[in-house]
Amino acid sequence: MSKSDRIPRDKKNDHSREMASQRAAFIKAQTGAELNTVSSYTIDPAITSGNIENFIGTVQMPLGIAGPLKMVGEHAKGDFYIPLATTEGTLVASYSRGMRVISECGGAKATVVKHSMQRAPVFRFDNALEAREFGRWLDENLNSIRGVVDASTDVPQLTEIEQYIVGNMMYTRFCYTTQDAAGQNMTGKATLHACEWIRANHPLKPRYILSGNIETDKKHSQMNMIQTRGKRVVAEFVLKRDVARELLRVDTESLYRFRQIADVGTMLSGAAYGGAHSANGIAAMFIATGQDEANVVESHAGMLYGELLDNGDFYWSVTLPALICATYGGGTGLPTQRECLEMMDCYGTGKADKLAEIIAAVVLAGDVSLSSAILAHEWVSSHEKMGRNR
Amino acid sequence: MSKSDRIPRDKKNDHSREMASQRAAFIKAQTGAELNTVSSYTIDPAITSGNIENFIGTVQMPLGIAGPLKMVGEHAKGDFYIPLATTEGTLVASYSRGMRVISECGGAKATVVKHSMQRAPVFRFDNALEAREFGRWLDENLNSIRGVVDASTDVPQLTEIEQYIVGNMMYTRFCYTTQDAAGQNMTGKATLHACEWIRANHPLKPRYILSGNIETDKKHSQMNMIQTRGKRVVAEFVLKRDVARELLRVDTESLYRFRQIADVGTMLSGAAYGGAHSANGIAAMFIATGQDEANVVESHAGMLYGELLDNGDFYWSVTLPALICATYGGGTGLPTQRECLEMMDCYGTGKADKLAEIIAAVVLAGDVSLSSAILAHEWVSSHEKMGRNR
Amino acid sequence: MSKSDRIPRDKKNDHSREMASQRAAFIKAQTGAELNTVSSYTIDPAITSGNIENFIGTVQMPLGIAGPLKMVGEHAKGDFYIPLATTEGTLVASYSRGMRVISECGGAKATVVKHSMQRAPVFRFDNALEAREFGRWLDENLNSIRGVVDASTDVPQLTEIEQYIVGNMMYTRFCYTTQDAAGQNMTGKATLHACEWIRANHPLKPRYILSGNIETDKKHSQMNMIQTRGKRVVAEFVLKRDVARELLRVDTESLYRFRQIADVGTMLSGAAYGGAHSANGIAAMFIATGQDEANVVESHAGMLYGELLDNGDFYWSVTLPALICATYGGGTGLPTQRECLEMMDCYGTGKADKLAEIIAAVVLAGDVSLSSAILAHEWVSSHEKMGRNR
Amino acid sequence: MSKSDRIPRDKKNDHSREMASQRAAFIKAQTGAELNTVSSYTIDPAITSGNIENFIGTVQMPLGIAGPLKMVGEHAKGDFYIPLATTEGTLVASYSRGMRVISECGGAKATVVKHSMQRAPVFRFDNALEAREFGRWLDENLNSIRGVVDASTDVPQLTEIEQYIVGNMMYTRFCYTTQDAAGQNMTGKATLHACEWIRANHPLKPRYILSGNIETDKKHSQMNMIQTRGKRVVAEFVLKRDVARELLRVDTESLYRFRQIADVGTMLSGAAYGGAHSANGIAAMFIATGQDEANVVESHAGMLYGELLDNGDFYWSVTLPALICATYGGGTGLPTQRECLEMMDCYGTGKADKLAEIIAAVVLAGDVSLSSAILAHEWVSSHEKMGRNR
Repeated sequence: MSKSDRIPRDKKNDHSREMASQRAAFIKAQTGAELNTVSSYTIDPAITSGNIENFIGTVQMPLGIAGPLKMVGEHAKGDFYIPLATTEGTLVASYSRGMRVISECGGAKATVVKHSMQRAPVFRFDNALEAREFGRWLDENLNSIRGVVDASTDVPQLTEIEQYIVGNMMYTRFCYTTQDAAGQNMTGKATLHACEWIRANHPLKPRYILSGNIETDKKHSQMNMIQTRGKRVVAEFVLKRDVARELLRVDTESLYRFRQIADVGTMLSGAAYGGAHSANGIAAMFIATGQDEANVVESHAGMLYGELLDNGDFYWSVTLPALICATYGGGTGLPTQRECLEMMDCYGTGKADKLAEIIAAVVLAGDVSLSSAILAHEWVSSHEKMGRNR
Repeated sequence: MSKSDRIPRDKKNDHSREMASQRAAFIKAQTGAELNTVSSYTIDPAITSGNIENFIGTVQMPLGIAGPLKMVGEHAKGDFYIPLATTEGTLVASYSRGMRVISECGGAKATVVKHSMQRAPVFRFDNALEAREFGRWLDENLNSIRGVVDASTDVPQLTEIEQYIVGNMMYTRFCYTTQDAAGQNMTGKATLHACEWIRANHPLKPRYILSGNIETDKKHSQMNMIQTRGKRVVAEFVLKRDVARELLRVDTESLYRFRQIADVGTMLSGAAYGGAHSANGIAAMFIATGQDEANVVESHAGMLYGELLDNGDFYWSVTLPALICATYGGGTGLPTQRECLEMMDCYGTGKADKLAEIIAAVVLAGDVSLSSAILAHEWVSSHEKMGRNR
Repeated sequence: MSKSDRIPRDKKNDHSREMASQRAAFIKAQTGAELNTVSSYTIDPAITSGNIENFIGTVQMPLGIAGPLKMVGEHAKGDFYIPLATTEGTLVASYSRGMRVISECGGAKATVVKHSMQRAPVFRFDNALEAREFGRWLDENLNSIRGVVDASTDVPQLTEIEQYIVGNMMYTRFCYTTQDAAGQNMTGKATLHACEWIRANHPLKPRYILSGNIETDKKHSQMNMIQTRGKRVVAEFVLKRDVARELLRVDTESLYRFRQIADVGTMLSGAAYGGAHSANGIAAMFIATGQDEANVVESHAGMLYGELLDNGDFYWSVTLPALICATYGGGTGLPTQRECLEMMDCYGTGKADKLAEIIAAVVLAGDVSLSSAILAHEWVSSHEKMGRNR
Repeated sequence: MSKSDRIPRDKKNDHSREMASQRAAFIKAQTGAELNTVSSYTIDPAITSGNIENFIGTVQMPLGIAGPLKMVGEHAKGDFYIPLATTEGTLVASYSRGMRVISECGGAKATVVKHSMQRAPVFRFDNALEAREFGRWLDENLNSIRGVVDASTDVPQLTEIEQYIVGNMMYTRFCYTTQDAAGQNMTGKATLHACEWIRANHPLKPRYILSGNIETDKKHSQMNMIQTRGKRVVAEFVLKRDVARELLRVDTESLYRFRQIADVGTMLSGAAYGGAHSANGIAAMFIATGQDEANVVESHAGMLYGELLDNGDFYWSVTLPALICATYGGGTGLPTQRECLEMMDCYGTGKADKLAEIIAAVVLAGDVSLSSAILAHEWVSSHEKMGRNR
């Protein structure tokens, strides 16, 4: 790489309008591209320090609001307006329709049923027997390892160390709770300290790699489905038969029958989500609220479960086993993102479960709307009307 | 829902500064939240029509640039600067490091090896025998169905109709090529027309639902891994032993050994991606370039394959079987997003494969950097230095 | 290995009573174990040549008969008595109950909807582009390759060559129909000939390995679920509401509700079969009829689909996407096994689809019985009464 | 069903030569099939009571012996001769070859690293919050539930109750150790007692179904891969470079390279086992030793892990996460089956882990032989020579 190809940087003052301009000029010189709108941002670059390197401006993603969504959750109670950042026409309208249906039926319950964030070092031994005995040693020394974690970091609490032996290797998952942070970085640090302590204290001084790939960070996995990553959260409501007919133009019997047809399709295809779509709402909320966008891949996994009740109403639930969201840290403090959190009173400490409940309920709303549109054969026509394929 | 809860809309002029302001005022009244920075956008609201409903402003996502990334692809040739929109500190720096390594080694090859976008209607019969005979009828009438598709839409070309019988149902996948569009909506429309023609012309007038869930739209699936969704693209390069030592502080032998440890972890956990992380780079590029952000969930799937060569160099490849990207339509024409595409000369028709090649090479760069950081035990310290967990 | 440790063999006359006795004496000398009943076989050892090496006697597996099972299949029509070889008490009784229910409801339909047996060589290239071009060459030369297959073997017909590129490798699946044989060996031979021809005729003389592991021979896989291995077969019947109540002591509504609870469990656990149990009946029939017992692992995969009809009856189907069975070759000609096939008029050519239909219907019967027993809380008590846990 | 169609039974003396003959005559009358060899069994029918209903004779499965296999396991030590019941020519010879290689290299280590047998009742609540609180109640009452288990059955020890909430349902897995029994029936009984106690004692008197399908009994699942079912066992040895060349005609470098090509194939196809074949050896040993044959489907799952050592030798391991085997109960006490167990000194109490070690080592031997044959292009020719496709 010749020097002239290098992106300009300033060690002392890199997150500044000046350096962003220099870089935009550099890009223009190198590629011919004008970055007028990228450069036309209204946030203070200094605030992005810690969130990005080589800052050159911002992408402006259209933000729409949907709602109100009535919630009767454990933490989220009342009517919420939901910020959705997306470029996909129809999305906000479709979610809004689902929210209206849920609200008309009394609102969505939502419950976080488990918390668990992981780092997954793998330890290598001469043989499986050593690996097994190491596992016993880990069990016996769990409290000491917890002490190491507590001494090295403030937030994460080590709940357990899951053990999975393959060959001469002990794959582990260090599971933590992380309060209102998503926690991938802080648990990484905590686990590194724990591993170094283990290496120093176990008689075999075992070699390890900080990730054996089974925390499945930034990946969907069946492991997440089973063991939870981030938050396992359920949203549920009872769809009234009359509301279904009036607002969705479908019978609850058809919805129930479709559940099983869709489930069979899910098993046939080995899909990560059993309903119509979870990723749309999660991605749009994640961008709006400053979540780590890559975590959509874990968070979109889930199962739909519905049941036709004796009175013809339809119990409808969505379970997200690996929802990763935070109300502080990461991108949550950036100006526009923070405002989106504040719109739902979800910024700051003590709010992460509330946010998780809302996200799950939004996913539920999206599935109510799209599943019904598919059944009522209205899905294409709404896209014709509102989306880009006119 | 009482009238006062309703989000203000204007049928004629809804994508306007006026209506955005009214909605911001409404949100403030309802929730108390000030939307000053959300409202401080610099793009023209009118241009978001077709991309969003209930527009209220924009989310400003920090944009960094990485590179140069040298490419010797089929379509992408030369040095590229890569726009990455993210809020995760260290990400741009880490990808940049990987790009530098690739560039020092002569650049990344990249190849789109298959195109296929699907809609997946399910047809219901009285029994499996009828379903099987229907499948034969579909085969025999494929050209007529192609004609229906051509008559109803401009872009999509129907390549084949995959058939999967379960019970008395024929789950199909209508597979299309869609030029430079992602194509989910246009193939939805085409498939609806095809299904209506089938229903009208097949003697049994079969009932159908437009989705049996096996196109796995907005979901990761093993189906995607096997059958492709969007583009199947491979990026590859040969990592020189000396470059690995110098820039990454790892031996190629260790990288090769780690490949298998990580693969075993992937199989153990049932993970969607075999390498360290694909979703980070894809999400950041998708936001920057106006892709449908929810498609990160399909696009992040993939396999790493590496091989230690006799001279100690390391062949390294990443295969993304379900990369969904476009260079027109959707959000690609929005001002900041379009500029990001232009930075790579990837805006407009005839550029989608080029963009796919670049995205795959970026994923490769990210894995080069993070895998090495994990092995060299540098992963935590870089986050300490650059990220938010100071 | 010292000479005295070697199992006695006779190059000329190894499948004989004499050599079996010598080996039994050898085992007694080496281990102290008396093999009286193993040695007390009544079949002619000579007939086992080609089926086993180091023949030492037989295992006598108890054989029970279940039925009659009324079938209204495409090939299997009428009442069948089913041979089940098992050591699990209750199994024959439970399947018999299911068969009675099906028969009372008019019998099981069954249909083979696809045939496909594979070998899956992987070809290695310098890069993905070469692999892609090789794929086109394969398409263009498909008829020549078919000719090679025809010239080298009698039975297998090459239907298609599926292509899956990863990195610089082309993973293929050579798909065949194999008439009444299971066909793994004959397709192995055919594919070897084809590969040698390809290697000789393609300009790059590509290296290959005869298996890249994606035929998933003797393994369950999602690939099998999607692409079929052996036979894809559906069995189905309509359970009458009254029969359910009387013979199974369950309501069809409960059965329908249980379907979805079980499906959710299947998705949660990533299980290969969506119903209660397919492996029991398949294993018992496979042993009885001389199938390759290891193929139970592929054959047990499947999906249940049921639907509550308006009149309260319950449509019930089972789909086995990878049923591997044969009516000649392998162990089907051994004396006891052949008699078991003859009991169903399934020995010899032209009978394989008929056998597949019967096996699928037996699986259906097993699920009818066990699912209902679980729901009626009778499952434990039947095992108490008939099984070993008294 | 008319009376004349009914299979003859005798309530008092059904497991007898007389009744078997009556049934054989009945089958001949109904189907025309002569059951001469089926009827020509040499075991006492009375002993099959509890193992089968409607006994009509036996299937005689050819039994071959392989070995010696040298083992340096935790429980299995010394040279073993392995009984393999199969009808697939080449199988015994191929496994023997692998055993010789392992023995020449000093023998196989093998270790059972975890025990866990499950029943998986699902409990239904009004909403997820109730389900979560029920989970806490289960944790608090674990010791009482253990007491109920102990009071109702002799063998099973309840180790833990895993909890997985989906919607308003709590899917549980009651995990047990079961000494030398496989334990599916005894844990079924124990779990039924536990559930009845829970229903009686929990304030909500929750409804439950004894199986929510996530014990995945008689099914392969990712759940088994992760959480273990039966025994998780590892077999391992170091293949010497020279032995590989001489006996297997392959280089250890090629074996190592093939590992990764096969792993990629496994991930691509979503296969249950990462090596060449586990089901062959397991099925043949299961039939020989009276295991429940259907459990092959769970037991065949696994991962291969290998590593090229600095001296050119190759560490090779196989991990079976869901091996289900027993040394008493079920079919283990039948005459021929018991002799096969005795041949390995594996009959009766205190032997189940030893048997598991041997089975895992046999799987390892099979993979050593077949993987090498595939690489050396000898796989087809051995089948030509020894198998049925002459």
